[in-house]
Amino acid sequence: MSRVYNFSAGPAVLPEEVLKEAAAEMLDYNGTGMSVMEMSHRSKAFEEIIRTAEADIRELMNIPDNYKVLFLQGGASQQFAMIPMNLMKNGVADYIVTGQWAKKAYQEAQKYGKANKIASSEDKTFSYIPDCSDLPISEDADYVYICENNTIYGTKYKELPNTKGKTLVADVSSCFLSEPVDVSKYGVIYGGVQKNVGPAGVVIVIIREDLITEDVLPGTPTMLQYKTHADANSLYNTPPAYGIYICGKVFKWLKKQGGLAAMKEKNEKKAKLLYDFLDQSKLFKGTVEPKDRSLMNVPFVTGDKELDAKFVKEAKEAGFENLKGHRTVGGMRASIYNAMPYEGVEALVEFMKKFEEENL
Amino acid sequence: MSRVYNFSAGPAVLPEEVLKEAAAEMLDYNGTGMSVMEMSHRSKAFEEIIRTAEADIRELMNIPDNYKVLFLQGGASQQFAMIPMNLMKNGVADYIVTGQWAKKAYQEAQKYGKANKIASSEDKTFSYIPDCSDLPISEDADYVYICENNTIYGTKYKELPNTKGKTLVADVSSCFLSEPVDVSKYGVIYGGVQKNVGPAGVVIVIIREDLITEDVLPGTPTMLQYKTHADANSLYNTPPAYGIYICGKVFKWLKKQGGLAAMKEKNEKKAKLLYDFLDQSKLFKGTVEPKDRSLMNVPFVTGDKELDAKFVKEAKEAGFENLKGHRTVGGMRASIYNAMPYEGVEALVEFMKKFEEENL
Repeated sequence: MSRVYNFSAGPAVLPEEVLKEAAAEMLDYNGTGMSVMEMSHRSKAFEEIIRTAEADIRELMNIPDNYKVLFLQGGASQQFAMIPMNLMKNGVADYIVTGQWAKKAYQEAQKYGKANKIASSEDKTFSYIPDCSDLPISEDADYVYICENNTIYGTKYKELPNTKGKTLVADVSSCFLSEPVDVSKYGVIYGGVQKNVGPAGVVIVIIREDLITEDVLPGTPTMLQYKTHADANSLYNTPPAYGIYICGKVFKWLKKQGGLAAMKEKNEKKAKLLYDFLDQSKLFKGTVEPKDRSLMNVPFVTGDKELDAKFVKEAKEAGFENLKGHRTVGGMRASIYNAMPYEGVEALVEFMKKFEEENL
Repeated sequence: MSRVYNFSAGPAVLPEEVLKEAAAEMLDYNGTGMSVMEMSHRSKAFEEIIRTAEADIRELMNIPDNYKVLFLQGGASQQFAMIPMNLMKNGVADYIVTGQWAKKAYQEAQKYGKANKIASSEDKTFSYIPDCSDLPISEDADYVYICENNTIYGTKYKELPNTKGKTLVADVSSCFLSEPVDVSKYGVIYGGVQKNVGPAGVVIVIIREDLITEDVLPGTPTMLQYKTHADANSLYNTPPAYGIYICGKVFKWLKKQGGLAAMKEKNEKKAKLLYDFLDQSKLFKGTVEPKDRSLMNVPFVTGDKELDAKFVKEAKEAGFENLKGHRTVGGMRASIYNAMPYEGVEALVEFMKKFEEENL
């Protein structure tokens, strides 16, 4: 068995320790004589798995008591509809469009009310985060929506927008648990787990209790109401149990690493190594405004499409997987999530240096 | 490691062979150097996993070419809304209510149009399947809905209803792949996989192509439109990739067992063993009309609640797990899905005989 360095943007690398434990427990979880996949979601063993997972993410993110943690399905894409269906009481919401996912959320919201695009960075291929200190927030906006880390473009809000008192809703899929956050600044903070937390098929929604009401848009499916899942502690119907179990193991791993402050330090160190190399390179260059650079997703180009393709090909042969950039940006992208070790980034930079020497 | 006999109604027992393979491949799937959980859903390796899974279920169920196979999220509960949102063109549908899940589907459909309850077995705690040979099908019904096997109550349609030419929609969650079916008799046949096929978090929808249209109810979320997923071959957004991978392994296992005709024979043999014992027992008795008995879920009682509880407790101590019946029926229930070996049912019957001798 030989593991590669996997720079996939998601689904993405998981801690090897977590995978080893999962493999060892596959036929018999903790003396139950069955796999977690085979377990009734109403069993004591699974109740303990999901409640421990919840307690651990609450501890990691320091989630206030007046927030619910929901383990749902359907990915961020389903949240694009759930959010307006549940929160658009006035039928108005403001969207800041900093990438493809924010744009999709904005487009979906238009089905349910007046969704306003109050800022965008589409003019420069989403390579920066707009100034959000004094935006034209709508007076009757039910919420202001952002995608906090833009996976495709490699940007991240370094400061949250000034929402002028309105509820902030944030998709944090690609920066989930990568650094400490102040949950109390958000009304809803959510993410698909398949980038930084676990296997695809689980979305975690952290939502302030006063936003969970029966007063949803007419025709909202029972399964798309936050109240359905909040009232049942995420066990209204069968949850994606195995995915939640893996997330729980990742939470334990994060605690062992020292929690989110320690993760931030590790992530900054990894990102700095790569960005510092890019900033002095004569061949490669980053595509993002330096002030808005993501710690998680690092897009870069050579400026020559053929050379980009050659790099991706040779990198793959050398054991660096999934470095091809998104088709809308081109070039390369290295996603360096929590589970990517420092050694992986170090090895990549060494490889890039060698490639530069050979191809400049 | 010691495995129990797991009679859970779902999530439920999986083939040991499948779990062993999954454990062995956890850190390195097929030489890729990564787990299936870590793999981009756009990668060649995952494309092959999902396309092979689709080809195998098509072969197993002999699915005609004019049907799409969709791998979705949200469980059957989400289908309760998706079905009317996508299919209620006239705003009318007929429901046959044979248990809790059919009832929930019927209730959810009322949000979206005129849902008619055209037959029910609620008068006798859903212990039988009503005569469906000449029901008052609505003239403008968009579809007739059934739950084909009722997990909680242990009943199964032995003959499909006469829909008088209307589209049949069936939830087959708890009899999925347990015997051959004639897919061409259905417009939609779907099931959550967590009972007979795989881990919770995947729902498989087999739908006739002419039913997949853009003409859905206003306000239907993009993620709840069959067309979204059909057009993208279930890769519109990140699918529940690991669950699909396990389902694919179960499909291979079923093919190795001889396919669905062979499974039917095995399932009939297992069910006969248990039903024959119940029919001659002086202590235990089945709760379902014999003609409507499920091959998958077998509820039974002693008639004495305390004795029922004693049985469940002693069975658990002897390594028979999850025999407690659903709270609405009481007593016991043995779910004997595809992956339950004949030896498991044999051992259970032996244990019941012994219990009967000791407690009569």
